[in-house]
Amino acid sequence: MKAARLYEYDPKMNVQLKIEEVKAPTITAPDEVIVRVGAAGLCRTDLHIIEGVWKPTMDPEGTLLPYIMGHENAGWVEEVGSGVRSVKRGDAVICHPFRSCGICLNCRHGEDMYCDNGQFPGLGMNGGFAEYFITSERSLIKLNANVTPIEVAPLADAGITAYRAAKRAAKLLRPGSYCVLLGIGGLGHIALQSLHAISGCRIIAVDREPAARVLAKDLGADFVLDGGPNVVEEVIQITGGGAHVVIDFVGELGVENVCWKMVRKGGQLFVVGYGGNINVPTAHLVIEEINIGGSLVGNFTELVELMELNADGKVKMHYTEYNLASINTALDDFKNRRFTGRGVIVP
Amino acid sequence: MKAARLYEYDPKMNVQLKIEEVKAPTITAPDEVIVRVGAAGLCRTDLHIIEGVWKPTMDPEGTLLPYIMGHENAGWVEEVGSGVRSVKRGDAVICHPFRSCGICLNCRHGEDMYCDNGQFPGLGMNGGFAEYFITSERSLIKLNANVTPIEVAPLADAGITAYRAAKRAAKLLRPGSYCVLLGIGGLGHIALQSLHAISGCRIIAVDREPAARVLAKDLGADFVLDGGPNVVEEVIQITGGGAHVVIDFVGELGVENVCWKMVRKGGQLFVVGYGGNINVPTAHLVIEEINIGGSLVGNFTELVELMELNADGKVKMHYTEYNLASINTALDDFKNRRFTGRGVIVP
Amino acid sequence: MKAARLYEYDPKMNVQLKIEEVKAPTITAPDEVIVRVGAAGLCRTDLHIIEGVWKPTMDPEGTLLPYIMGHENAGWVEEVGSGVRSVKRGDAVICHPFRSCGICLNCRHGEDMYCDNGQFPGLGMNGGFAEYFITSERSLIKLNANVTPIEVAPLADAGITAYRAAKRAAKLLRPGSYCVLLGIGGLGHIALQSLHAISGCRIIAVDREPAARVLAKDLGADFVLDGGPNVVEEVIQITGGGAHVVIDFVGELGVENVCWKMVRKGGQLFVVGYGGNINVPTAHLVIEEINIGGSLVGNFTELVELMELNADGKVKMHYTEYNLASINTALDDFKNRRFTGRGVIVP
Amino acid sequence: MKAARLYEYDPKMNVQLKIEEVKAPTITAPDEVIVRVGAAGLCRTDLHIIEGVWKPTMDPEGTLLPYIMGHENAGWVEEVGSGVRSVKRGDAVICHPFRSCGICLNCRHGEDMYCDNGQFPGLGMNGGFAEYFITSERSLIKLNANVTPIEVAPLADAGITAYRAAKRAAKLLRPGSYCVLLGIGGLGHIALQSLHAISGCRIIAVDREPAARVLAKDLGADFVLDGGPNVVEEVIQITGGGAHVVIDFVGELGVENVCWKMVRKGGQLFVVGYGGNINVPTAHLVIEEINIGGSLVGNFTELVELMELNADGKVKMHYTEYNLASINTALDDFKNRRFTGRGVIVP
Repeated sequence: MKAARLYEYDPKMNVQLKIEEVKAPTITAPDEVIVRVGAAGLCRTDLHIIEGVWKPTMDPEGTLLPYIMGHENAGWVEEVGSGVRSVKRGDAVICHPFRSCGICLNCRHGEDMYCDNGQFPGLGMNGGFAEYFITSERSLIKLNANVTPIEVAPLADAGITAYRAAKRAAKLLRPGSYCVLLGIGGLGHIALQSLHAISGCRIIAVDREPAARVLAKDLGADFVLDGGPNVVEEVIQITGGGAHVVIDFVGELGVENVCWKMVRKGGQLFVVGYGGNINVPTAHLVIEEINIGGSLVGNFTELVELMELNADGKVKMHYTEYNLASINTALDDFKNRRFTGRGVIVP
Repeated sequence: MKAARLYEYDPKMNVQLKIEEVKAPTITAPDEVIVRVGAAGLCRTDLHIIEGVWKPTMDPEGTLLPYIMGHENAGWVEEVGSGVRSVKRGDAVICHPFRSCGICLNCRHGEDMYCDNGQFPGLGMNGGFAEYFITSERSLIKLNANVTPIEVAPLADAGITAYRAAKRAAKLLRPGSYCVLLGIGGLGHIALQSLHAISGCRIIAVDREPAARVLAKDLGADFVLDGGPNVVEEVIQITGGGAHVVIDFVGELGVENVCWKMVRKGGQLFVVGYGGNINVPTAHLVIEEINIGGSLVGNFTELVELMELNADGKVKMHYTEYNLASINTALDDFKNRRFTGRGVIVP
Repeated sequence: MKAARLYEYDPKMNVQLKIEEVKAPTITAPDEVIVRVGAAGLCRTDLHIIEGVWKPTMDPEGTLLPYIMGHENAGWVEEVGSGVRSVKRGDAVICHPFRSCGICLNCRHGEDMYCDNGQFPGLGMNGGFAEYFITSERSLIKLNANVTPIEVAPLADAGITAYRAAKRAAKLLRPGSYCVLLGIGGLGHIALQSLHAISGCRIIAVDREPAARVLAKDLGADFVLDGGPNVVEEVIQITGGGAHVVIDFVGELGVENVCWKMVRKGGQLFVVGYGGNINVPTAHLVIEEINIGGSLVGNFTELVELMELNADGKVKMHYTEYNLASINTALDDFKNRRFTGRGVIVP
Repeated sequence: MKAARLYEYDPKMNVQLKIEEVKAPTITAPDEVIVRVGAAGLCRTDLHIIEGVWKPTMDPEGTLLPYIMGHENAGWVEEVGSGVRSVKRGDAVICHPFRSCGICLNCRHGEDMYCDNGQFPGLGMNGGFAEYFITSERSLIKLNANVTPIEVAPLADAGITAYRAAKRAAKLLRPGSYCVLLGIGGLGHIALQSLHAISGCRIIAVDREPAARVLAKDLGADFVLDGGPNVVEEVIQITGGGAHVVIDFVGELGVENVCWKMVRKGGQLFVVGYGGNINVPTAHLVIEEINIGGSLVGNFTELVELMELNADGKVKMHYTEYNLASINTALDDFKNRRFTGRGVIVP
């Protein structure tokens, strides 16, 4: 099959993925499924993999390369293991990024991402920038009849990360409450739509990029700010004392220490983007009684819910399509923010 | 002041309210507020009061008449008691129907309707079918600048009853879940809009009246049914096994024993309308693990939230306006379902 | 192996299980596990199976008999299928009664008992009144080093049914709240201990049997009542207006329509026992705003939690031991309530 | 009346309160209540007030002194304002430390400490280190017949601060979960007892003082650690990967940056003590998906619940009694940790 493979890590990212013919994966366990890739989303994590940021975690002994990235996958079932009952050849599916075991206590609580025995195709094992990739039955959700893989692939990872944060936020938000979203990119624009669909709150979208602000307005943000130096005061002014929830999709470049200053007494900051360090006085935490919490990739049931919102027309992924042969152009456009929403690779 | 007063109970409702000049109320305690009525909604409970259904509760000794009904009130502050700080003369306000004490443990938990020392203007003490009525500071919410009393008066009671049920439902509903609403009248059409605003679920609206079904469709119900003899099968078919939540705004005429049959395993029935008896096998409750719960008038904070949804244009009351002088016509039209939504009396 | 088999249904229960030599089960799928039975609890459901109550559900074509009952099992792993990773031969285990698939959406939400593809050893397929029985990896929890199968076997079903109800109750109970338990038998005495361990509420235990009342007192019930004709008034008196939660382990013989009358405004009745019909006015449900909900067998994670409480010495099963050869005596003693707590069969 | 008054701030605390005769407070509003002090707890905040830490907040213009500290008060109602209905002269009461308005939206949500119009006797207005002090009806809870003011006074502030954190923790803790308490002083020993009463979790108590560790063991901590340099590793070892909840009653001296390292994936740190700064990588927050939140003084309903636990014998305050005349000795003993639990002043 055709695949795009990474041959070396480079902090400066002056490397090209090689498009080449490789051996297609084969079933080796009863619960495995081979998926013919319909589309695979491009994630900031892919850039970090190329830079070598993930090498210590996913390739400690340096034996992984050459390998195939791509962890936001959707396509069609090509072949199933002997124990698979819930899907069959030809089914259109979206793939939760994590292969969880279903046996450990974390899985039993529905927290797939905490699985004691999980595997992550595209991070440490071959992923979806190829014609086929292998995953397991527990990762698959059948698509509705009217949905095609390319429309939804990035929901598999970017989408559920944003949705999980939005869902956690919605539990804390009443009509009349305010939620600030910092960063209206691939994740933020999904969070914005999700919040509108599942909560009656008011949304303040913040982004430095004019195109992202236009998208935020189009998607129904109640207020749109450009994230200038007065952003904390602006939020406090609009909200009458601070936002009930803030979701930070940036997490670095100083944003991480601006966010908690705009949270209202008793409110919550969800941190999704990362890179920086949060430095906060305990006295502020206590007197304002605020919470600061990380938010991870969503679990399987969250992907199911997001697919339902998508089927109902309430949440749509904005994307730009690239052929597998043009994947290096796609990576370059991504690095330079030449598209809004998400880039998607089609084999 | 002018007021409409009830002079006798009559199970057949062949009585007319008398429009007459009466003494206006006066402040007698530091927390009291006199409100100049802008509009007062007409409630099914008013019909029941005329019929004498509420006599044992609110007029056990038969000394109440003549008296002024009307418990869905909005208007302008006319005069305030010496201890009142949060509103002043001229403020446009909506009035939570219940005067709660703020001291008892139920009040401290925010459950105003459970107050140990509450009073209910319009049920046992004079209400809002008049130019002025008296309530207390704790009942009042200031209106947003762009909102007039007539647009919102029935939200004070019909609205928050529907909203409370919708809010309780929303906590149980995920995207992809189904909620059935039985009865799309004054309450049901508010519940429908509220659910759309605060939950990503799918809504199945059921009503025997064609006009109510048209309203339901206009307000965005995903499915609209006429409540014929196959309604349980229809719901099970649409939902693939039963609705996650059912809200019954009827509660009598046999509807009460149809509702719980359309609830999915692990699901919930909220009962808002009343009159009939529910008869359910414990084996069905246990094996299906369903829950059946009554839902009462909403509390103060729920009225605040509903007013925010209204201010944001997400929930609007449909109403027909009548002068106080025409209140007997309004009552007659209501009995005979000559309008959809709510009837509103303007002094 | 030796096993006790049922050869005919009899509404009068004048039948004896036959203790005989039968073929031991063998592994046929990669996730299966054969357990050497250490102990198997006797459940009221076993009596109902003998009576034929469950025949329509579990044996519609009348081809099941002779078969082996027993669905509250603990023992040691004897043999594992090729895909099993989490247990190995020799491990002491307790068995969740239900074999769930781990793939369907209900399983993904952790609701094992709602599994779309579940199987129930002991109800429709051979169970644990034998030397060995077969289940699947997902049903097994390893015992702590200091715990033996006989001490815990009935926690597998009776225990988690009681614990699930207690856990749901605890979420609604604050310090100072009251919880009524009706029936302090095999389930009730576990609920009582569980509530003490996980909630600061006050417990009112009700049972007609003096021995059960003594047990309730020993286990720390704050109040113990004999369930006479004034029980509703007694509860209202003790609680100052009704219990915040009532758990009914009887569900028949009239108890089912006494329970909801002792629930406080805004309170909850959980129905665990079954047989009767609840008949309740919708007006009572609404005005008192009470909830009535069934509660089923607990799921896997609830069995994990109950085993932790047991390991910590906070919840202990009271039981009487019988040899497999004496199972017919055990059944007879059970029918005639000759023991408190639970009867347990040891092969 | 006799009272202890502060005449100057001193960062080195080389000052003595003056015990002198002052004018007793008088009623000036209909909701006010004068309480004859039975006992008043000594709080670390009192030390900070003397040091001048609170001057900018509570005495910005330097006009407050001389004044009476003391915000953990219990006693007997001496006189009530004209609007007070729920207590009468002679009633034994404990006083929530904050005088909330009952009208603002925060009060309506039950969050007394967020009140927009609150007052804090003992912090900026005269408190309870005296024979009488003044508060309002909404602050008072009647004591059970068998409870005396001295046994409970510090529950009014130290107690509910600990209880609120414990209650928030309990919602996140299942049987088998671990909760770490850092600091087993006046607050920590209440949190420990509260957790035992309302949760089935396991408790790891950490304190550098041997006497505090003895108290922790006596109160039933499952594990007691001395907080040495390996405390993170010890906790990870005991818990098999980190604690589900950590409550930090210290919040300074480096403890604040040890705490979050012992939290398990998906777990929570509650910060109660303060003084230091938390410095945490966003990557750690996200990948471990942990939450860090401040926790404030409990609200009125939490004090009600704590008093119920106290009445049931489940939570008891350990205290050392001092006469008002010896208050300077008490302060000195407190600074030098010469007692465990709480110091209490009796007029």
